Amino acid sequence: MCGVRTIDWADGAIEIIDQTRLPEACVTLRLTTVDELIDAIRRLAVRGAPALGVAGALGVALAGGDRALIARLRAARPTAVNLAWGVDRAAAHLDEGPEAVLAAALRVRDEDLAACAAMGERGADLLEGDRLRVMTVCNTGGLAAVERGTALSVVQTLHERGRLEEAYALETRPLLQGARLTTWELARMGAPHRLVVDSAGPYLVSRGGVDAVLIGADRVAANGDTANKIGSYALALAAERAGVPFVVVAPESTIDAATPTGDHIEIEDRGPEEVLTLRGVRLAPEGTRALNPAFDVTPHDLITAIVTEKRVIRP
Amino acid sequence: MCGVRTIDWADGAIEIIDQTRLPEACVTLRLTTVDELIDAIRRLAVRGAPALGVAGALGVALAGGDRALIARLRAARPTAVNLAWGVDRAAAHLDEGPEAVLAAALRVRDEDLAACAAMGERGADLLEGDRLRVMTVCNTGGLAAVERGTALSVVQTLHERGRLEEAYALETRPLLQGARLTTWELARMGAPHRLVVDSAGPYLVSRGGVDAVLIGADRVAANGDTANKIGSYALALAAERAGVPFVVVAPESTIDAATPTGDHIEIEDRGPEEVLTLRGVRLAPEGTRALNPAFDVTPHDLITAIVTEKRVIRP
Repeated sequence: MCGVRTIDWADGAIEIIDQTRLPEACVTLRLTTVDELIDAIRRLAVRGAPALGVAGALGVALAGGDRALIARLRAARPTAVNLAWGVDRAAAHLDEGPEAVLAAALRVRDEDLAACAAMGERGADLLEGDRLRVMTVCNTGGLAAVERGTALSVVQTLHERGRLEEAYALETRPLLQGARLTTWELARMGAPHRLVVDSAGPYLVSRGGVDAVLIGADRVAANGDTANKIGSYALALAAERAGVPFVVVAPESTIDAATPTGDHIEIEDRGPEEVLTLRGVRLAPEGTRALNPAFDVTPHDLITAIVTEKRVIRP
Repeated sequence: MCGVRTIDWADGAIEIIDQTRLPEACVTLRLTTVDELIDAIRRLAVRGAPALGVAGALGVALAGGDRALIARLRAARPTAVNLAWGVDRAAAHLDEGPEAVLAAALRVRDEDLAACAAMGERGADLLEGDRLRVMTVCNTGGLAAVERGTALSVVQTLHERGRLEEAYALETRPLLQGARLTTWELARMGAPHRLVVDSAGPYLVSRGGVDAVLIGADRVAANGDTANKIGSYALALAAERAGVPFVVVAPESTIDAATPTGDHIEIEDRGPEEVLTLRGVRLAPEGTRALNPAFDVTPHDLITAIVTEKRVIRP
């Protein structure tokens, strides 16, 4: 069994849901040292930008003022800017003593809880209709944050208000975060849902089967262009043609004023192996080459609204 | 080792490439009785509408005039209309004796060879540019026909003319025909290619990485709306926005004048198991429900041209 929160502080230690075990088992890990936390971060037992921010902050509380150890934690996943941000939030209070550090770390956790709840409320308020069929991609739920997520927080709020007819989760190749994690979260919250392959998403939107598309964001450019998990762009095209709202749900920290447009966002290619094999099963002939862009960019003219913890932006 | 042809007649028997063994091994099966052929059809050792038409016709030549056996062959895969069509083509000559039956069956084979070659030539003629990067979905190559296919015949012709820069094969979830079969065919013809997940297709088109999209068709309605493998519609949306040609390659027999528009095409749902498991590996939590539409419909206004063995239609 495991707790409700993806990451939390309990009796002087960090507790996380071990995401490497999902969906087969939900296991809580208790981490009592920074080294254990670094190991958990590196093997993706804890993942997702908001969750890593909280992990960084709580990790400083475990470090007992050891600045070398804190520096190692800060660098555990170089591309995860939220990890360094969370470390810095708590480490700014090191001179005030351990109680001040822990209080700062718990504020990071509590701010995430409040932000995700606010996004869920605001997103649900934005959508019209009594019984909604919504579609989402990747995992944007509590497993990427503390307790609720971003786009999936809106789905959860709709469900709590009795307004969710059904949620469609795209499986999200190549890593299948939708099939493995989003379905698990939807089941845990008791929300009716079905899984579909990624390419079926645009088609179901086109046939009138979807009332709203809700996605997260990895980065929002100054003009509202949005980078998110590969597959988001095709959903946006389909939603525009069908006249269906396409809503991005992301915290204010995702908005990057230094990036003028989506053309300036570099898209990471994660290499061929994720495409060519799946849990050890080879999917293509030996020697096949692959392209593996992890994200795509949705131009702002295809986005109905961007919902943050503070406001609704209409690009 | 295996031959070049997916299905052929040799020394009084049918020879097929056993597609259940691809891409790990290419094995030719020699079928000397109608029962062996029915078994091969049922376990998808031979598949694809044109190939099944040839299988039906050649199967009659194996039957030695046994009309009950021919009726069983005709019903081996009830939804495959081409199988019955091929059986009927050869069986119409039963009264003229075995030589006439075999000659009729070989005509069905030879017509497919000629039609696929013609589609390849006409499609390559249609596209402009010296070095083309083309994208395709599912398997539309020789493995679905006798020697060349439909959309992949165009790719092959471009390659033979020195005009193919690279082919992008979408993996085609859930059954991965692109990953398993199209990559294998492209490698066999020596054409440069890379595999991508389905959701990356529309994104690569949007970023200027693709010069043409080439797909097959399961049915073309009278107004030019086209049903094809799930994922085709999203590619069409992306191609339109990017100003990239979106070309459907299909034989005249695919055009169904009795179906007025794509709205009248019923889309088969192939059930949840294909989505939930992959070669015995479970992808989602126990109890997850899934939708599995096997095809989607692309409206004619998104289609640049339909190429058949006889003409180019611009819907």
